[in-house]
Amino acid sequence: MKFPSPVSLQWISELIDAELIGNTTANALGINEIHKVEEGDLAFVDHPKYYDTCLNSNATFIIINTKNVVVPTGKALLVTKQPFEAYLKIVEHFRPFISYTKQISDTATIGKNTIIMPNVFIGHNVTIGNNCIIHPNVTIMDYCVLGDNVVIQAGTVIGSDAFYYNGKKDREIWFKKMKSCGTVIIEDNVEIGAGCTIDRGVTHETRIGKGTIIDNMVHIGHDTVVGKNCLFAAQVGIAGATTIEDGVTLWGQVGVSKTLTIGANAVVLAQSGVPSSLKGDKTYFGYPAEDASVKRRELVWVKRIPELWKKVMEG
Amino acid sequence: MKFPSPVSLQWISELIDAELIGNTTANALGINEIHKVEEGDLAFVDHPKYYDTCLNSNATFIIINTKNVVVPTGKALLVTKQPFEAYLKIVEHFRPFISYTKQISDTATIGKNTIIMPNVFIGHNVTIGNNCIIHPNVTIMDYCVLGDNVVIQAGTVIGSDAFYYNGKKDREIWFKKMKSCGTVIIEDNVEIGAGCTIDRGVTHETRIGKGTIIDNMVHIGHDTVVGKNCLFAAQVGIAGATTIEDGVTLWGQVGVSKTLTIGANAVVLAQSGVPSSLKGDKTYFGYPAEDASVKRRELVWVKRIPELWKKVMEG
Amino acid sequence: MKFPSPVSLQWISELIDAELIGNTTANALGINEIHKVEEGDLAFVDHPKYYDTCLNSNATFIIINTKNVVVPTGKALLVTKQPFEAYLKIVEHFRPFISYTKQISDTATIGKNTIIMPNVFIGHNVTIGNNCIIHPNVTIMDYCVLGDNVVIQAGTVIGSDAFYYNGKKDREIWFKKMKSCGTVIIEDNVEIGAGCTIDRGVTHETRIGKGTIIDNMVHIGHDTVVGKNCLFAAQVGIAGATTIEDGVTLWGQVGVSKTLTIGANAVVLAQSGVPSSLKGDKTYFGYPAEDASVKRRELVWVKRIPELWKKVMEG
Repeated sequence: MKFPSPVSLQWISELIDAELIGNTTANALGINEIHKVEEGDLAFVDHPKYYDTCLNSNATFIIINTKNVVVPTGKALLVTKQPFEAYLKIVEHFRPFISYTKQISDTATIGKNTIIMPNVFIGHNVTIGNNCIIHPNVTIMDYCVLGDNVVIQAGTVIGSDAFYYNGKKDREIWFKKMKSCGTVIIEDNVEIGAGCTIDRGVTHETRIGKGTIIDNMVHIGHDTVVGKNCLFAAQVGIAGATTIEDGVTLWGQVGVSKTLTIGANAVVLAQSGVPSSLKGDKTYFGYPAEDASVKRRELVWVKRIPELWKKVMEG
Repeated sequence: MKFPSPVSLQWISELIDAELIGNTTANALGINEIHKVEEGDLAFVDHPKYYDTCLNSNATFIIINTKNVVVPTGKALLVTKQPFEAYLKIVEHFRPFISYTKQISDTATIGKNTIIMPNVFIGHNVTIGNNCIIHPNVTIMDYCVLGDNVVIQAGTVIGSDAFYYNGKKDREIWFKKMKSCGTVIIEDNVEIGAGCTIDRGVTHETRIGKGTIIDNMVHIGHDTVVGKNCLFAAQVGIAGATTIEDGVTLWGQVGVSKTLTIGANAVVLAQSGVPSSLKGDKTYFGYPAEDASVKRRELVWVKRIPELWKKVMEG
Repeated sequence: MKFPSPVSLQWISELIDAELIGNTTANALGINEIHKVEEGDLAFVDHPKYYDTCLNSNATFIIINTKNVVVPTGKALLVTKQPFEAYLKIVEHFRPFISYTKQISDTATIGKNTIIMPNVFIGHNVTIGNNCIIHPNVTIMDYCVLGDNVVIQAGTVIGSDAFYYNGKKDREIWFKKMKSCGTVIIEDNVEIGAGCTIDRGVTHETRIGKGTIIDNMVHIGHDTVVGKNCLFAAQVGIAGATTIEDGVTLWGQVGVSKTLTIGANAVVLAQSGVPSSLKGDKTYFGYPAEDASVKRRELVWVKRIPELWKKVMEG
């Protein structure tokens, strides 16, 4: 999330009651989680294991729970006992809850010739392009952006919160939600089926590329980037922060894990599971998804075990 | 889709700017895609690979992009450079978008003692029988037909568009939607759970047979025909144009591919995948789904490989 | 389901036209299905195979279709030809359909600082605690109870009917719905994603424990009890009457069968299937889900079959 305009670090340190060390006169441009952070942004870290990663990330300003680290040149620390709570406080300040008095917020922008059917909810600051069709009972949450010629079928949810929690097992409630302040960008000519859910980025964006078509009950996790002209069949699930390049086909019920890449024009056959990155221009099958012809031969080999057994055990 | 009344071919050829060859004084009764076309209907074909299939199908009138074919006796050609666009033009003429001014269209017919709970959307020309219960946030799109004693639970979508596209990779937008003008027929005593999606036929119908019960989050593709007294557990997905005969049981998360048949009273165990037709009266399991007892033995055989290995490799 | 106050057996026997045998002056406290029945409750049985189980269950009063059984001391029989229809009659008497004149029933109780977004349906006698957030297009059916700090994301359905039918293949309509009169209890600090469905108990309750977090498109069946601080990723499906103990993690697209137990702190990896109970504190994988390290080695063994084959068949 970028702030509406640069914000004084001094002011932020007071908001979150942190000690400011380093470049104290600077302004922050936004706040992002560690994987998506850009120069000029704030990020936070609360575990010694990740101190170095965060200090050496693109983050210019680091909310941290120690002073015993070397501040990289030009950067600043905001030292506080509870970096996660500090993150929440900043996000809640810049994205306060604004109540909804209408089904379609007055702050939403809707293009020409776009059809919004009954029972649709459109949140604050949503932008929808021209010639779109939004079917009944669709939910589009705050700040999401739809291009032109987009079709969203009934019951689909765009911009649900990221499934992203701060987990600690030494307290009564293990999981604390990392409040989502990211968004969803749906490019031109995308068509999304009925009953889908597309989560917003935690602090950045989830993106569906131009011309991609998505069947019913497909789930796409936070910060995932889908390329152009992809085809996802029904009940596909894609976890968070994954990259699906252009022209990828995922057949029904395929599951894709987080933070991996599927290369352009790859095809993943129905019900396969993808736990790690796949190269483009090939067809995959099974769990873990492998070259489909290799996997098919494997199924044949399994059927030969009894013959092997007979030969070996009975001579 | 049948036309409201027979339509002069001459008039259609002018609408789509096509040259009419053959039986030029005839009337067309409807338009359908090649698998569902009936005598008196129009169909279209734009790839030489399928010319013969289409000319020899039940279609009486063929929208085609060549003159170099033999017109079968009694049939007619409508020759145009872009048969797919011609199809879209005809469908859009007979099924123009009519805006929804109410949550429940005035053109919908709703039977006696039928309960429609709040936040339900019912489109134009929908027919619902007697003693039905339609739970909140359900969407029933135009032209769908529900019999008597039907229950549709919350959030379910009946009549979403077919996931059916004309795909060509030599243009910027690969997929162009084949506009759905088919419908969904739900017979008497069917019960459908929450969060399901049932796509309409592309040009014909998707049908759920009498007394079939469907659990939550089940997806059923376009033009699929489900028999009577079937039982589908949660998260089952069935692709398009498949036939499920009477009394079939599909347990949770089963996936069924397109254009196949599952025979009467077959049982498919949870999480299985069905890539091709299955005979009735048997129990299946695994991917690809096979006779369950065979498949269970296979799991046992796999566990014996280490023993085989030891014997063979170590003597 | 408990009755609003104790109900005379004599009165019930007249309602369902049954002959009362045994403790005829007693009052019944409620009606429950056989697995959930408590002392003072009615239960029903219509198949000789289950007569003994029902007579020896916690049920104090048994609706049954025979007199030829020994009535246990202190219990009573209500003898009728159609015990299932008698059950339905009692449930319909105590839970008559009350029409919904508003999106949010006047009989619902909603706590302080709870946000209800547009297009939400809240049924009769629902209780929602403080500081909850209910996103758009959510459905919460009658009698469900939500604690404090609960988040329900868009399109989710709480309290859909149990998928629980009386099945008999010797009649035209095989399946007759066992009308749900149970409920859903969602404890404090639970967060449920978008597009989920949580069925109510048939006669008792479905429960989600304190602090559990659930991603999008998760299905939870009737009478299932989920412990505290569990984490379920997207598209998980859990069948009915299962117990998931505290701290269990189910990754994406996992399927869990009915009436089993997953022990505390177990982890089940993505796409696995759980057909029977699992012990706690271990990681599982595959179908059927087994110790993940064992299963991973199995995948390696399968790849060695060709080498074995070569050695054995070709010497």
